Amino acid sequence: MIKVGIIGVGTVGSSVVKILKENRDIITARAGKQITPILGVVKNLDKNRSINIPLSDDVDDILNDESIDIVVELMGGIDDAFEVVKKALAKGKAVVTANKAMLAYHRYELQQSAKRQPIGFEASVAGGIPIIKALREGLSANHIESIKGIMNGTCNYMLTKMMNEGVEFDEILKEAQELGYAEADPSFDIGGFDAAHKLLILASIAYGIDAKPEDILIEGIENINSEDIFFAKEFGYSIKLLTIAKKIGNSVELRVHPALINSNEMIAKVDGVMNGVSVVGDRVGETMYYGPGAGGDATASAVVADIIDIARNDNSSPMLGFKKILENDMLKLKNSDEIFTKYYVRIEVKDKIGVLSQISNILGENNISINSFLQKQSVDDKFATLLFSTHQCFEKDIQNAIKKIGVCEFVKQLPAMIRIEE
Amino acid sequence: MIKVGIIGVGTVGSSVVKILKENRDIITARAGKQITPILGVVKNLDKNRSINIPLSDDVDDILNDESIDIVVELMGGIDDAFEVVKKALAKGKAVVTANKAMLAYHRYELQQSAKRQPIGFEASVAGGIPIIKALREGLSANHIESIKGIMNGTCNYMLTKMMNEGVEFDEILKEAQELGYAEADPSFDIGGFDAAHKLLILASIAYGIDAKPEDILIEGIENINSEDIFFAKEFGYSIKLLTIAKKIGNSVELRVHPALINSNEMIAKVDGVMNGVSVVGDRVGETMYYGPGAGGDATASAVVADIIDIARNDNSSPMLGFKKILENDMLKLKNSDEIFTKYYVRIEVKDKIGVLSQISNILGENNISINSFLQKQSVDDKFATLLFSTHQCFEKDIQNAIKKIGVCEFVKQLPAMIRIEE
Repeated sequence: MIKVGIIGVGTVGSSVVKILKENRDIITARAGKQITPILGVVKNLDKNRSINIPLSDDVDDILNDESIDIVVELMGGIDDAFEVVKKALAKGKAVVTANKAMLAYHRYELQQSAKRQPIGFEASVAGGIPIIKALREGLSANHIESIKGIMNGTCNYMLTKMMNEGVEFDEILKEAQELGYAEADPSFDIGGFDAAHKLLILASIAYGIDAKPEDILIEGIENINSEDIFFAKEFGYSIKLLTIAKKIGNSVELRVHPALINSNEMIAKVDGVMNGVSVVGDRVGETMYYGPGAGGDATASAVVADIIDIARNDNSSPMLGFKKILENDMLKLKNSDEIFTKYYVRIEVKDKIGVLSQISNILGENNISINSFLQKQSVDDKFATLLFSTHQCFEKDIQNAIKKIGVCEFVKQLPAMIRIEE
Repeated sequence: MIKVGIIGVGTVGSSVVKILKENRDIITARAGKQITPILGVVKNLDKNRSINIPLSDDVDDILNDESIDIVVELMGGIDDAFEVVKKALAKGKAVVTANKAMLAYHRYELQQSAKRQPIGFEASVAGGIPIIKALREGLSANHIESIKGIMNGTCNYMLTKMMNEGVEFDEILKEAQELGYAEADPSFDIGGFDAAHKLLILASIAYGIDAKPEDILIEGIENINSEDIFFAKEFGYSIKLLTIAKKIGNSVELRVHPALINSNEMIAKVDGVMNGVSVVGDRVGETMYYGPGAGGDATASAVVADIIDIARNDNSSPMLGFKKILENDMLKLKNSDEIFTKYYVRIEVKDKIGVLSQISNILGENNISINSFLQKQSVDDKFATLLFSTHQCFEKDIQNAIKKIGVCEFVKQLPAMIRIEE
């Protein structure tokens, strides 16, 4: 029998207990052993909970219990959780965690700390979708060329609504909060940070890149408005908050930002709160993984799958799936400035002679050429909105051009920009 | 170092050798060991091949070589391959196979034959998509409620063309043969048998069902015509060759047939030669897996992933992922007659009074009611085509009704029927 201790018994933790109990028969068949949750640790013992295992408010009750084989860490937070997991590993226990924030900062130290025990973390990325297993094992024959993910359900729900119903950002956000799809303080989701944590985890498996959230480009969806949506529809695009990892030569690009993607691409069809991850390998080509990225039961499905893997004794390979440097030459993280892609730009200007030529000049000076162009007049005829997409150019050039255009006297406010992912 | 012998060095076998050599560095990093193909066995040594490993035409050269750790079986066929694999297992070698036909007939005997060695068979279903790993490990916490797959690229290519371009079946088939997407004798693909083999493999992992191709409902796409396509478009459906495994109570339905599915469903968006598999688990909900289902490199990607797993020593669990009966009560295979779903029916009739009421009577006698209805006049006004979909009814009832309608004097030919999957 495998004994499990669970640190943090909230939504996901309760689902883990429920699945282990309610699906006991099929789990025992698959694992070849009984798996039993014997203790949960919570902050507040007085809170009313509908789960049926013994509870404690002292994490040491799990760490010091020699009969516990697997510690499931669902307490959240970064450094406290890291300390607890290290202690569990030091005690020789296997660990399963859904804590993407901890992994975004400490995954390499964790891989070091685990000497022979497995660390399962399938639940940390894209909830119920077994994307870590796919990347770590299913595609292990491939050099990974790119990973493009829609990995934040809140953002995808909001963007889908904006595309389909033409509602404005603020209105959708309020609705998402009422439905429980967005937090009271939504900045972690909407700002792209949640998606970035997940991207960093996947990038480690694919590339062995050791980067932290501070090291990469992260932009949220706060500035998307109905005119962006209009443009996207006009030219056959969807707008998605995309996490991108891409190998170009010896560099790896890691970035999170809204992107226009061709509506015909499979990943463009991932709508609502669902998640999707497209992975391109040098041998297999594109594969895509789709499913629920959040929710107690979906996330717990991944936690329990990790527990079963450990019970099956499948996980003797290193946590991130590699033992040596992954590429011939050590890969380095690509600087955001060097991103080379197409862009969509929206500029509100005073409607007078010479404006377009001044903007064109600035673009030309920065080696940017326009691909498609739309002009919309405002109601009172004093302002016009310019919407255009560019041919491929460097990120530092478009940033520079936007800054220069933004300080022109005829411009109403700093231009808005979205990257186009093709 | 792990030594690999490959039996059958055609398209997939050559790609396996190429990937093991060209991606050697990343594979060594991921496996923690060097993996080297040391011998290939082919039927005809005189044939010109562009691969760079020693070749033999005697399978015993691999079976009797004690230094070979992993035997890759790519020879094809059913019983001969089964004998070879059994011998390899008896010699203590691990086995990796892409042979879906052999597995469709002998997977349980193989699981018995393997005492402690792993048998990898990821490449046998849906080519480069790691669907076996997802089902066997990623979703192991779940009771599987259903699997719906588009797992034959030939059929999906043809149906997609018919939907998008309105071309007739025979024309598309010729084109697919010219492009190499269909065999000279296409009946194995087009008749649904290839997809059925794959379905049986997945159903074993999900349900522990031991069925052979003869035991299940298999229908091909030969009878789909442009009027079916017209109807599907009119009512928002796509037509796909679907493999379906579904648990209903203590029964499992296994079937392969063309189906109308709502165009908005994610699986309906799997177009062209691509494959897609949607799996619904009782805890995780729907997840979907998409990618190339055929081709040398994509299939070899899965073969090599299995080799790497074995080198990592990950696969000590039983081949199909379970050690005991999977469900509380032993599941049984559901009889095709008991399928309960919606149907689309096309009937060509003489255009005269009373026809519709006679057809309605027959449907009513068989407990079938109509959901939507379209009538198309033929050019010469002598015949009319009736297209309709039904509410849910039993397979045996619709079969019976069609037989009865088919012998009416006013009917031009046996009605055509497609199941609707919602």
